Amino acid sequence: MGQILAIDIGGTQIRAALFERGSLKPARVERTRTEASKPGVYDRLEALVASIWPEGGQVDAIGIASPGPLDPHTGVIIATPNIKEWRNFPLTGKLKARFGVPVVLDNDANLACLGEWQFGAGQGHQDVLYLTISTGIGGGVVSNGRLVQGYHGLAGELGHTTVWPDGPLCGCGKRGHIEAIASGTAIARYAREQIQDGGRPSSLASLATITSRDVSDAAAAGDLLAIETLARAGRYLGVAVANFLAAFDPSIVIFGGGASNSGPALFDPFHASLRENIFDPTYLTNLTFARAALGDDAGLLGAQTLAAMAVTQK
Amino acid sequence: MGQILAIDIGGTQIRAALFERGSLKPARVERTRTEASKPGVYDRLEALVASIWPEGGQVDAIGIASPGPLDPHTGVIIATPNIKEWRNFPLTGKLKARFGVPVVLDNDANLACLGEWQFGAGQGHQDVLYLTISTGIGGGVVSNGRLVQGYHGLAGELGHTTVWPDGPLCGCGKRGHIEAIASGTAIARYAREQIQDGGRPSSLASLATITSRDVSDAAAAGDLLAIETLARAGRYLGVAVANFLAAFDPSIVIFGGGASNSGPALFDPFHASLRENIFDPTYLTNLTFARAALGDDAGLLGAQTLAAMAVTQK
Repeated sequence: MGQILAIDIGGTQIRAALFERGSLKPARVERTRTEASKPGVYDRLEALVASIWPEGGQVDAIGIASPGPLDPHTGVIIATPNIKEWRNFPLTGKLKARFGVPVVLDNDANLACLGEWQFGAGQGHQDVLYLTISTGIGGGVVSNGRLVQGYHGLAGELGHTTVWPDGPLCGCGKRGHIEAIASGTAIARYAREQIQDGGRPSSLASLATITSRDVSDAAAAGDLLAIETLARAGRYLGVAVANFLAAFDPSIVIFGGGASNSGPALFDPFHASLRENIFDPTYLTNLTFARAALGDDAGLLGAQTLAAMAVTQK
Repeated sequence: MGQILAIDIGGTQIRAALFERGSLKPARVERTRTEASKPGVYDRLEALVASIWPEGGQVDAIGIASPGPLDPHTGVIIATPNIKEWRNFPLTGKLKARFGVPVVLDNDANLACLGEWQFGAGQGHQDVLYLTISTGIGGGVVSNGRLVQGYHGLAGELGHTTVWPDGPLCGCGKRGHIEAIASGTAIARYAREQIQDGGRPSSLASLATITSRDVSDAAAAGDLLAIETLARAGRYLGVAVANFLAAFDPSIVIFGGGASNSGPALFDPFHASLRENIFDPTYLTNLTFARAALGDDAGLLGAQTLAAMAVTQK
C-alpha cells in the first residue's frame, strides 16, 4: 500500500504533504506561495507536487482541499474568490493526466469536517456537524459515517442559510444569512456601525479598525457594546444551529475558526438560544460541543481522508 | 428469498401488506382500526400481523411507518400525538420477540421519502428532499442513496426549522417554524385571523370554518385575501427550501400532502422566493420539482424499502 498525497490550497500558500495512510503526521511537507493574483498558479501547484513525489515510492491517490465553489464529482473549480484564473478549471483532471493516480477534491470546510472526524474532535462519532467561524461561516456534515456532498457538491453551505429574512446583507448578496450576522466580519461590522452611526459609547471607539478579536477582548473587559454585539451573534447562531440539528441530528457540533474563540460572551447566549429554539430537547441529549482540534491541518488531513476513501471504494 | 411485511400506522387505521421484495403492488393487504384512544392498540396490531402472516411462506423482515417522535435505532416509539398508551414503547422489540424476524421502524415522513425514492417520483435520483404539507409539515431526506436518520433518529424534521425568529407560534411551542407559516393549518388560521381580527373582506368570511382547501379554492376564484395568504406561505416556503438546498443539495424536491395541491397561488411565489433567496444559482441547475406519486401508499412502500435494506445489509 502506497502513500497519500494531500494538498491544501490557501489564500497565501499551497501546502503538499505525503502521508502514510491513516497517519496524523506527514512524512514530508512542502510549500509554495499561492500568489493568487499572478498567472501560473496551476504550474506552481504542479511543480510542488512533482517536488514532493517520492522517488521509487508509490502514491495511491491525491486529495485536494480548495476554496469553493467547486464540484467534487467532476473535480472542477467553478470559481475561487482569490484565484481569478481558475474559472471552471478542471483541477483534478489536469493532475490526474500529469501524475497518473486518482485525484479527488472538495472544499476546505467539508474537508476540515472530514479531517476532524477522522483525526480530531469528531473521532468516534458517526454524525458530525462542523462550523468554522472566521471571516465567513463555513460548514461541513458527516452523516452516518459519510461526508454529505450533495448532487452539485454544494451541500453543507451552512453559512448561507437564512435565519432572519429581513436581516443584514451577506457578502453573497442575499439577506439574513447566519454568515451576515455571526461571522467575524459581521461581528466587527456591527460594533463599528453601532459606534459610528449609532453614536454608542464603547472602548472600541478609539480603534482605527475593529476586528472580531477586538470585540471579544472588549467584551471580556466588560465593554457593554461588545457584550451586546456578541450576544446578538450568539442568539442568531443558536437559531441556525437549532435548524441544523433538526436537519442532520448530529452527535457532535465542532466549532473552528478564529471567531469561535470568543468565549462565553458568544457561547452563553448561543446555548441559551439553542435551548430556546430547538423543537425537541432529545436533540441535545448526549450532544457534544467541541472546539476543532487540528487547527490549520484540518483541511490537509481531510484531503488525506477523502483520497484514502476514494481508493478504498475502488 | 421471502416476502417483506410492511405496516403503516395511521390515525384512523393500521394497514399491513405483504410484498414480494421490490414490488410496487402488495400480494395481500389487511387493515384494522387504530382506535388510538382505546387500550390495546399493540394487541390489535399484533393480531393484524398474525392474520396476514403467510402460511408455509417466509417473511424476511417487518418494516413499520409510524408517527413520531421515535428512535429508529432502538425501535422505540418515544411518543405519538394520537396513541397515548405508547410512551417509550419498544415496538420493534415486541414484534421481533413475537414473530422472530428483523423489525425496523421509522417515522412516516422519512419512509414516505424512502418510498417515493424507490418507487415514486424520486426514482433514479440519489439526493432527494421530500416535504409533505398537510396539517403540519414533515420532511425526509435521502443523501447519496441513503436515508438521513441522524444520531437520535430525528434528522429531517424540516417543518420545525426557523425562518422567522419572531414569527407565529408553532404547534410545538416554538416561534417562526415553517410549519407555523406554511402548513395547511397555518394557512387556514392566517386567513381566519385576517378576516376576524383584521376585518378584511373575503369570500371566505361566510364560512363557519376555513380549511386550506377553502383558501386554495378562493384564491383560484380571485379572492384577494386568499391570494395574499398563499403568497405569504409560498414566500416563506421559498426561504425554507433555499435553506434545505444549501444544507443537502438534492437533485429533486418532492412535495406531498393535501396543502401542496394549492397550485400556482402557492407555488409561483414559492419559486420566486426560492430564486431570490438561494445563495448560488447552481443549486437550481437540473433541479427537479415533482409532486409525490404514491399517495397514501408512500409510507407502506417506504417501510418495505427500509425492511429490505435492513436484511440486505446483514
